[in-house]
Amino acid sequence: MPAIADVHALERHLLSGIPLAREMQMRVAEYDGACLQLVAPLAPNVNDKGCAFGGSLVSLMTLACWGLASLRLGEAGHSAEVFVQDSMVNYLEPVWGEIVVEARQLIGDSEWNDFIAMFNARGKARITLTAEVVSSGGSAAARLSARFVALRGEASAAVPQSPIDPPNPDEGMT
Amino acid sequence: MPAIADVHALERHLLSGIPLAREMQMRVAEYDGACLQLVAPLAPNVNDKGCAFGGSLVSLMTLACWGLASLRLGEAGHSAEVFVQDSMVNYLEPVWGEIVVEARQLIGDSEWNDFIAMFNARGKARITLTAEVVSSGGSAAARLSARFVALRGEASAAVPQSPIDPPNPDEGMT
Repeated sequence: MPAIADVHALERHLLSGIPLAREMQMRVAEYDGACLQLVAPLAPNVNDKGCAFGGSLVSLMTLACWGLASLRLGEAGHSAEVFVQDSMVNYLEPVWGEIVVEARQLIGDSEWNDFIAMFNARGKARITLTAEVVSSGGSAAARLSARFVALRGEASAAVPQSPIDPPNPDEGMT
Repeated sequence: MPAIADVHALERHLLSGIPLAREMQMRVAEYDGACLQLVAPLAPNVNDKGCAFGGSLVSLMTLACWGLASLRLGEAGHSAEVFVQDSMVNYLEPVWGEIVVEARQLIGDSEWNDFIAMFNARGKARITLTAEVVSSGGSAAARLSARFVALRGEASAAVPQSPIDPPNPDEGMT
């Protein structure tokens, strides 16, 4: 996979490769180097009660984290395959309008630096990221915490897998 | 919401109320009273590497658990709103073909009986359910454990919300 070096490349990559991302009509709204914001309209993501489908919320939060890790690696010049390993999700409030998701790494730049340095040295690194669905009142309507692993393009080329799916168990990621 | 008393009613309810369930082309495949199986083809749920999108896997696992709880309540004659509160997901192997998801309650009938009895007595009950994506080799390709709360139709009618989205915080479900 080529490096994803900016938000336009990220949006293109997600929309061209994942039919469900297109169906959710997600788009990359903002990115400041630390926080990546995705948005999606309610209509294609609604459920039978008229609010947002939980599956859309968890999908968008996972994509936002995946995108943030891919962007940080791409900015450092790395071509990587990024995989989600596990996640915890809390559903806190229903969402009645546009879905706004923000992903970030809570601990800050030191952990990003370690992640990039480890990837640079070993071609493999792990990081825990968090995402929230922002409610209309500004609090979190849902929250996700997820662990991701990044593998160097060449290292993962022999086992082509989803950037948002699990790595080969042989890689020892359980 | 009317009681969901059989798998045909469940499938109709999901496909008519949730656009993304239609886009995923999910269908209810089997139900034996203890285990509910949903299936979906790979094509609409694929990602850029040609295997299943993690967002589809977690959505289908959550829907399977939600459907199982709704069926058990419906079979007991109850009209209920069922909400997911939180979940833990492990992604173990990529899925390269049809997605097969099975939801069950691991502890068995005693906990189902407590769940139904509590709902009957108080109009509100909680249960933890688990779902797996079955891999082609028969092991789990992904696993979800999630907590659900069921509210009696009348009790929840004043605050119409998603059956797969969070309840009102005033209900005290955090």
